[in-house]
Amino acid sequence: MGFKVSDLGEFGLIEHLTRFIKNNDQSIIRDFGDDTAFVRLGNEILLFTVDTLVENVHFLRKYPPEAVGWKLVSVNVSDIAAKGGKPLYGLITLALPKDLELSYVEGIYKGISQALDFYNFSLIGGNTTSSEKLCLDLSLVGTAKRVIFRDNFKVGQKIYVSGTLGDSLAGLEILLSGKENLEPYERKLIERHLKPVARLDLSSIVEKFASASMDISDGFLSDLSKMAKNKTVKVFTKNIPLSEELKLYCSKRGKNPINYALKGGEDYQLLVASDIDLTLYGFTLVGEVLSEGGSKIVDEHGKELKAKCFDHLK
Amino acid sequence: MGFKVSDLGEFGLIEHLTRFIKNNDQSIIRDFGDDTAFVRLGNEILLFTVDTLVENVHFLRKYPPEAVGWKLVSVNVSDIAAKGGKPLYGLITLALPKDLELSYVEGIYKGISQALDFYNFSLIGGNTTSSEKLCLDLSLVGTAKRVIFRDNFKVGQKIYVSGTLGDSLAGLEILLSGKENLEPYERKLIERHLKPVARLDLSSIVEKFASASMDISDGFLSDLSKMAKNKTVKVFTKNIPLSEELKLYCSKRGKNPINYALKGGEDYQLLVASDIDLTLYGFTLVGEVLSEGGSKIVDEHGKELKAKCFDHLK
Repeated sequence: MGFKVSDLGEFGLIEHLTRFIKNNDQSIIRDFGDDTAFVRLGNEILLFTVDTLVENVHFLRKYPPEAVGWKLVSVNVSDIAAKGGKPLYGLITLALPKDLELSYVEGIYKGISQALDFYNFSLIGGNTTSSEKLCLDLSLVGTAKRVIFRDNFKVGQKIYVSGTLGDSLAGLEILLSGKENLEPYERKLIERHLKPVARLDLSSIVEKFASASMDISDGFLSDLSKMAKNKTVKVFTKNIPLSEELKLYCSKRGKNPINYALKGGEDYQLLVASDIDLTLYGFTLVGEVLSEGGSKIVDEHGKELKAKCFDHLK
Repeated sequence: MGFKVSDLGEFGLIEHLTRFIKNNDQSIIRDFGDDTAFVRLGNEILLFTVDTLVENVHFLRKYPPEAVGWKLVSVNVSDIAAKGGKPLYGLITLALPKDLELSYVEGIYKGISQALDFYNFSLIGGNTTSSEKLCLDLSLVGTAKRVIFRDNFKVGQKIYVSGTLGDSLAGLEILLSGKENLEPYERKLIERHLKPVARLDLSSIVEKFASASMDISDGFLSDLSKMAKNKTVKVFTKNIPLSEELKLYCSKRGKNPINYALKGGEDYQLLVASDIDLTLYGFTLVGEVLSEGGSKIVDEHGKELKAKCFDHLK
């Protein structure tokens, strides 16, 4: 029996496969391993990223198609925002079942179009093909004034997050429960999952003040552990920003909202290390870089916090 | 009963959906409707294209994975070559079944890596996810010295093609027949289908001398009809370049090779209109632009040649 892709998992597979690729083009600043690739072209720094939504993996057919289109654009823009950049051009691939209702695809395109207006960039090309399951792929080119890697953490720097965390996971749980007669706080949490808003509004703050930055897509602890390679990082768990909706959701169900905030994915907030006090710009102070070495995250009492990574291929 | 995507078909759907997208970015020279999109960024003209290979639509699992990886890169490079450009950077999406053998994905990457070396550009990023069927998507950025559209045909200009046509369709037929103990000419035709070579070697000739240019992916007549919008074009069917392998294949089976050459897809040769005699550069003269209006293709006796488009969504 040979190895399966699930034996390596998503991150192991990427690491394994990129060994086959040897780049020696001097214009490439960074290729794999960050939110975007960086290249220098003429006087520009260009950012490249690509993300995919697959039916039954990332979304269900019963979701509103406008939300699916919106989310496809937002998850890509989030990567550009995390690098302090500005999106310029997108290319889309639609792989569609032949018997899909035309109105569903129109809905997806309406959502895409709304997101293009909101984030202010252009879709310039694409490709359509048939497939058994709906699969949407967007690649995006952006530009940045400087290069901000995700792992440029320095000892003594403070760590900040934007917005609130954990809402998306709670929204997903409500969605999957099939509950009807939703209360307003439940509708709001669902909205956070279905129609996340990329923090492009904070991109210029990142560009001016970030030492390291990435977006939170897999979950706070999981993503922080990617940033904090070979560092020990302290997290002020009491500071983790929670929405009123998440607190209400958890209090009604006897759950701890901190767990949602630390481990839930798809919030698409920004995680930034800086020497500057970013609370002035609406960020929340959530941690600091304690020391070199260790590759671990501890709470305010020194207890290790373990990241549980979501892995698409496991 | 609402409309299905198959009611519009691939080309109708693209036309329908692009109406939802309104671009007013002045840097965009052309967005949808050509082999690549064109933008002007600083002093550069950048080309953008994306192509997808879906299991059971574009390839079967039993094909050698190295060939699948090679073809994914080649079909994209072919679009850049058709615009007289040079590929720079690629982004890849792998959507994989969890139980796929690791060795199959490694094979795909070996093929990709060989193609990157051959065409001399870099893969700088990507994305991996799970899906029920294998789906590979590559988006590609290139650069060009000038802008060459596919439909810039002028009355009196001659039309040229590179290489030979129809081989890929014959190769596909042999593959699907499941024939064993293949003769050398059959192996060669299969190779043309599985591992097409993009004509990047002709890109600088296109850049210097083409008035209009595109690659032949859907078939000679089908693609010529896209170039010849609102023109009447004469095709010298006797000149259509045929390989010895295709002639042998057809003679053994009582078929007409011209039909394969006119209607077969996936040859990835170039179709170019020019005022210059491109036979000096290995192209074959296959037609001329007769007059404005008509939107039709005729043979040397004035008989209309009808394109039969392959449509993924019909």
